[in-house]
Amino acid sequence: MITERIVSFRDARDWKQFHGLKDIALSLMLEAGEVGEIFQFKSDEEISLHLHTLRERIGDELSDVLYWTLLMAHDSGVDLEEAFSRKMARNEAKYPLEKAKGSKKKYTEL
Amino acid sequence: MITERIVSFRDARDWKQFHGLKDIALSLMLEAGEVGEIFQFKSDEEISLHLHTLRERIGDELSDVLYWTLLMAHDSGVDLEEAFSRKMARNEAKYPLEKAKGSKKKYTEL
Amino acid sequence: MITERIVSFRDARDWKQFHGLKDIALSLMLEAGEVGEIFQFKSDEEISLHLHTLRERIGDELSDVLYWTLLMAHDSGVDLEEAFSRKMARNEAKYPLEKAKGSKKKYTEL
Amino acid sequence: MITERIVSFRDARDWKQFHGLKDIALSLMLEAGEVGEIFQFKSDEEISLHLHTLRERIGDELSDVLYWTLLMAHDSGVDLEEAFSRKMARNEAKYPLEKAKGSKKKYTEL
Repeated sequence: MITERIVSFRDARDWKQFHGLKDIALSLMLEAGEVGEIFQFKSDEEISLHLHTLRERIGDELSDVLYWTLLMAHDSGVDLEEAFSRKMARNEAKYPLEKAKGSKKKYTEL
Repeated sequence: MITERIVSFRDARDWKQFHGLKDIALSLMLEAGEVGEIFQFKSDEEISLHLHTLRERIGDELSDVLYWTLLMAHDSGVDLEEAFSRKMARNEAKYPLEKAKGSKKKYTEL
Repeated sequence: MITERIVSFRDARDWKQFHGLKDIALSLMLEAGEVGEIFQFKSDEEISLHLHTLRERIGDELSDVLYWTLLMAHDSGVDLEEAFSRKMARNEAKYPLEKAKGSKKKYTEL
Repeated sequence: MITERIVSFRDARDWKQFHGLKDIALSLMLEAGEVGEIFQFKSDEEISLHLHTLRERIGDELSDVLYWTLLMAHDSGVDLEEAFSRKMARNEAKYPLEKAKGSKKKYTEL
């Protein structure tokens, strides 16, 4: 449903012509960067303390990330819900509870 | 429901201690980069031609992006569906059909 | 001199054909991400404490960033030393000592 | 000499307190993103055609990338010239001319 809104927003403006997958990926990277920019030069304490004033901006930037994520899934023919479920199953296998609990090691080092 | 799976995966491993919002943002940026890496040094023609072999990797990397996006929304108390809807309404206003159609100008230049 | 080494390394391998400016920019972004990855999930204390073991990797990844930075300057006809000097002069004007000292405000807010 | 200018610019403003290595890395990633943004939604043809109007902006953004690259090298005690030379030597070994010429394969696939 969200994907439909994105695609119809895009197609009504005839923007698909500008949206090769590489440009969508670049846009996704840039929007992820705008999320990061919110926290630049802020300590964890400052972030916690000011979270209520940052929340709207976080929501805005995450929305932009979601926009490009879902648009790329659509344009590349990926069923993201299925892909996500498959990926999570793999993560659960790579990071078994008894080894991964409380550890930040990569699965290759566990 | 997807968010619940992410949070219970994370909390079962006791990983929240490593997940300040700045680190989640950094992780999101890195995973967005892994999406971009799929297309590095490939022309649009090559991407189209080999899309069927790239699709699984695209699905994997977009899943990782989705993971950090939803985790950040959860941890920062953002209702992402609401935020997304608000942002799209704003985009629709900033890019009115009659001005934006077929144009790649930024709204500030329309 | 460094630029000459990069360009002759690249041209000896006949790689210019793969290096549109957009791909160079993407490569630069990805290598900057590899610098960031060194610090992912590490607190400032851990980073300081383990700096001596991280230093070689930091040097490697910064070298890759430098590679793409200088290659892009070369391929786009930018005199980076001149551009840098001009940019620093502008930064010095945007952030005058008496206003900027000890403040992390953006120049637009000073 | 460039590094000296950066460090004295920074220290005169008493900004080191905001510059943990993780934040410097994040800043580097964001500035690399600003380089990428120059080329967003532009085809290679458009980029070539308009290069003369893009050149100043490319120089500005590459300067910002250089700023954070050299600052990180300085603050982490990396001799970047030495590190770069070592990395290039390794690249030359990983991509021998006779195998790498005209190929965009990664060294692990050569």
